Amino acid sequence: MRHLLDTRTLSRADALRILDIAEDMADTQSREVKKLPTLRGKTVVNLFFEDSTRTRISFEAAAKRLSADVINFAAKGSSVSKGESLKDTAQTLEAIGADAVVVRHPASGAPRTLATSGWISAGVVNAGDGTHEHPTQALLDAYTIRKRRFGADSRGRDLAGVRVVIVGDVLHSRVARSNVWLLSALGAAVTLVTPPTLIPQDVTAWPARVLYDLDAALAEEPDAVMMLRIQLERMHAAFFPSEREYARRWGLDAARLRRLPDDTIVMHPGPMNRGLEISSDAADSARSTVLEQVANGVSVRMAALYLLLAGAPSAGSGTEDDEMNRGER
Amino acid sequence: MRHLLDTRTLSRADALRILDIAEDMADTQSREVKKLPTLRGKTVVNLFFEDSTRTRISFEAAAKRLSADVINFAAKGSSVSKGESLKDTAQTLEAIGADAVVVRHPASGAPRTLATSGWISAGVVNAGDGTHEHPTQALLDAYTIRKRRFGADSRGRDLAGVRVVIVGDVLHSRVARSNVWLLSALGAAVTLVTPPTLIPQDVTAWPARVLYDLDAALAEEPDAVMMLRIQLERMHAAFFPSEREYARRWGLDAARLRRLPDDTIVMHPGPMNRGLEISSDAADSARSTVLEQVANGVSVRMAALYLLLAGAPSAGSGTEDDEMNRGER
Amino acid sequence: MRHLLDTRTLSRADALRILDIAEDMADTQSREVKKLPTLRGKTVVNLFFEDSTRTRISFEAAAKRLSADVINFAAKGSSVSKGESLKDTAQTLEAIGADAVVVRHPASGAPRTLATSGWISAGVVNAGDGTHEHPTQALLDAYTIRKRRFGADSRGRDLAGVRVVIVGDVLHSRVARSNVWLLSALGAAVTLVTPPTLIPQDVTAWPARVLYDLDAALAEEPDAVMMLRIQLERMHAAFFPSEREYARRWGLDAARLRRLPDDTIVMHPGPMNRGLEISSDAADSARSTVLEQVANGVSVRMAALYLLLAGAPSAGSGTEDDEMNRGER
Repeated sequence: MRHLLDTRTLSRADALRILDIAEDMADTQSREVKKLPTLRGKTVVNLFFEDSTRTRISFEAAAKRLSADVINFAAKGSSVSKGESLKDTAQTLEAIGADAVVVRHPASGAPRTLATSGWISAGVVNAGDGTHEHPTQALLDAYTIRKRRFGADSRGRDLAGVRVVIVGDVLHSRVARSNVWLLSALGAAVTLVTPPTLIPQDVTAWPARVLYDLDAALAEEPDAVMMLRIQLERMHAAFFPSEREYARRWGLDAARLRRLPDDTIVMHPGPMNRGLEISSDAADSARSTVLEQVANGVSVRMAALYLLLAGAPSAGSGTEDDEMNRGER
Repeated sequence: MRHLLDTRTLSRADALRILDIAEDMADTQSREVKKLPTLRGKTVVNLFFEDSTRTRISFEAAAKRLSADVINFAAKGSSVSKGESLKDTAQTLEAIGADAVVVRHPASGAPRTLATSGWISAGVVNAGDGTHEHPTQALLDAYTIRKRRFGADSRGRDLAGVRVVIVGDVLHSRVARSNVWLLSALGAAVTLVTPPTLIPQDVTAWPARVLYDLDAALAEEPDAVMMLRIQLERMHAAFFPSEREYARRWGLDAARLRRLPDDTIVMHPGPMNRGLEISSDAADSARSTVLEQVANGVSVRMAALYLLLAGAPSAGSGTEDDEMNRGER
Repeated sequence: MRHLLDTRTLSRADALRILDIAEDMADTQSREVKKLPTLRGKTVVNLFFEDSTRTRISFEAAAKRLSADVINFAAKGSSVSKGESLKDTAQTLEAIGADAVVVRHPASGAPRTLATSGWISAGVVNAGDGTHEHPTQALLDAYTIRKRRFGADSRGRDLAGVRVVIVGDVLHSRVARSNVWLLSALGAAVTLVTPPTLIPQDVTAWPARVLYDLDAALAEEPDAVMMLRIQLERMHAAFFPSEREYARRWGLDAARLRRLPDDTIVMHPGPMNRGLEISSDAADSARSTVLEQVANGVSVRMAALYLLLAGAPSAGSGTEDDEMNRGER
């Protein structure tokens, strides 16, 4: 595995490999062996062109538990703000010794460009790019669903027959996109519930069904309900309902929570807008996997970094023939 | 010891335990064994809702010398600034793997809320909350006084008979509050010298005497004079004297320094406003313990982290029955 | 070696020692022994009063590969912004445990003041001060030239007979100053090519020749051409030509590149203004050493930190009699 750029081009086999290794990582952690020597001497750079403390810290914790050195590079205030190109920044980081670059970027496709342009040979992990994808988020979500469904040892299993409802601003959500591709590749049936103004134009090409009525979707008793974060700074735009209207029609409130089966799990990528897309009843209920998702995120990112870096030659080489993301399909 | 939240509810025995372990830590450091494996695999998160580079770096150095992993989380620019609650932030950090959370917060009481609400089971260290407390500062101050008084091995000793004068804006000072409680618990006699407009209303309930005349207080030849930092941004408020007036009446200048006994120590928590609350003569004199305080701060914080984390089960458990802070007394 | 403050007072022997140890470091790195235990237990503080992500990260990577603990201290938002003096900041950092302080400062001479004032005994590395010097940049440049010229094992060799052309805003460039002193000490012949308005007044005292015509300088077929970064924020000042004029007269464009001998190397300290002082043809050509310079920077900084810290007693001592920088000559 050379890079982790998206879930759209990630094969079912490779996805399961990441999830299974993440389960190994989680087992190790729970046995108090918190620090593995696996990536000692490797350097992971968090190259963040957008603020995202949660994601950055999760990757940082994952890398440190594998004994890698971590260097945080926030583009703000750096030479990037003086006009340096993505190419020069990335090549500089590789020259300084980056074996893997975890990149968050406002432009959709920037991580792929970084990985496939030949600029660098370091491994690239997409930590969120524009409205495109956020593959490790989808992997941790799939991991969480699988773990809740199959318990202690769920290695090798996929999500065949699992029904997942994703609710919110699908148009702008890279979390939704990555989940649609990954969950469907793993055999789950995905339903999107979204305000009519927030449906992507190309959604008919997605392996997912679209509904507009949240209550109708919940009445089908799905296995998991994933509430997307509303980005409040967008709520003022013309295509958004008011906050109150949004919460009433697309929020998971106490009443809707009560109508869900006991074993339906409630997911949210965080940070939550309590009282908007999710009520505190839902967020703090036993059905909620919000904190499990965060914890699983570290395991999944350990797995991804392990697959990219363990046993691989040092920065500068590019001889791996096991390329996970081979291009858009 | 589960948390370190304040000195007001810290028992004399527990305070001495921290000071004694800090002395062990300092001894180890002076023997060139700078890196101890004690907290290897543990993760300490510095959760700072206010800037405080000095305190953050001191905790970071302390954690690293014990081989813990350190993750710095500055609330600014993070999801906190997008409205995430303290509860969600803390639970997220614990899910990512925090075994201890060192928290600096503008709201008095925030660390106690974090520790006692049941939100998280990680250990909580108060690194300064509003105008409430800053317990590790008081502990390093007590350590410094004890060390100066008793020399090489002062383990087990308290501060009975020691007379300490604390000078400045007591009303707004968490450093003063933490010192009053701790020093008196250790047997010291504390005198507060403060402009009349800057006396806390409830000061009569404190185990300390109040004087208004610095020269009268110094004429009693105290063992230690602790100058509080004036926060210049508050000097414009109605209840503050002018800078010149403040320096003249409540500043430790060369003349006052000369009148002090040779073995009276001069303390300041830093950063100093030279020429305002303390003159350079005082700051740089042999009586000054300003830099010893900084160095001792690392030892005291190593001791606190050690007591919270060494031998304790990993994040998520909460089975320790040895609770140091049991609630307000 | 106690400090690394400039190249002007660095002897030829000491410069070669740094370059030779840097070569040892690079060899170790290339054999996949990325992490050396040499500086375990030592603490390196990056004290940056100006933003410089590239330089800071390079020192951070160097220190971590030697197993030192690294603490980053950005003056912005710290007590420095509340008016703390350089002296108090530095003494605080040493009290916290800094064994070496890597300092970037807008004031020329600040690192020397820090090192020679007696304020601290920690080693000081100048990471760029005002328009004065940037010695590790010059050392990595010299290393790069030597490596390209002599290949695999160039230990012990100097740059006698090598001809280097430095092009750009010499007046404001600490990179140019450090290179002039170092390269000439190593036996190289240095030519400066600069707009007439950007020549330092005291340049006649420098061991370098000044030309105004870039094409004339290049026609002499130098071994290395070093393009200085134009700081665009200064381009509006009266003594600067327009961007277009600058690129035309002092930029290394495709035409000029073609006229250079095949073995002339093209250098740039980064970040590059592509299309201004250097064209992409030049930046990305096989002649370009831009990324080698970055990589070599880590080796050179490892060597400098090694010489300052390895085998030296801990912070607080000052018994080394091997002082590399003995004062201005």
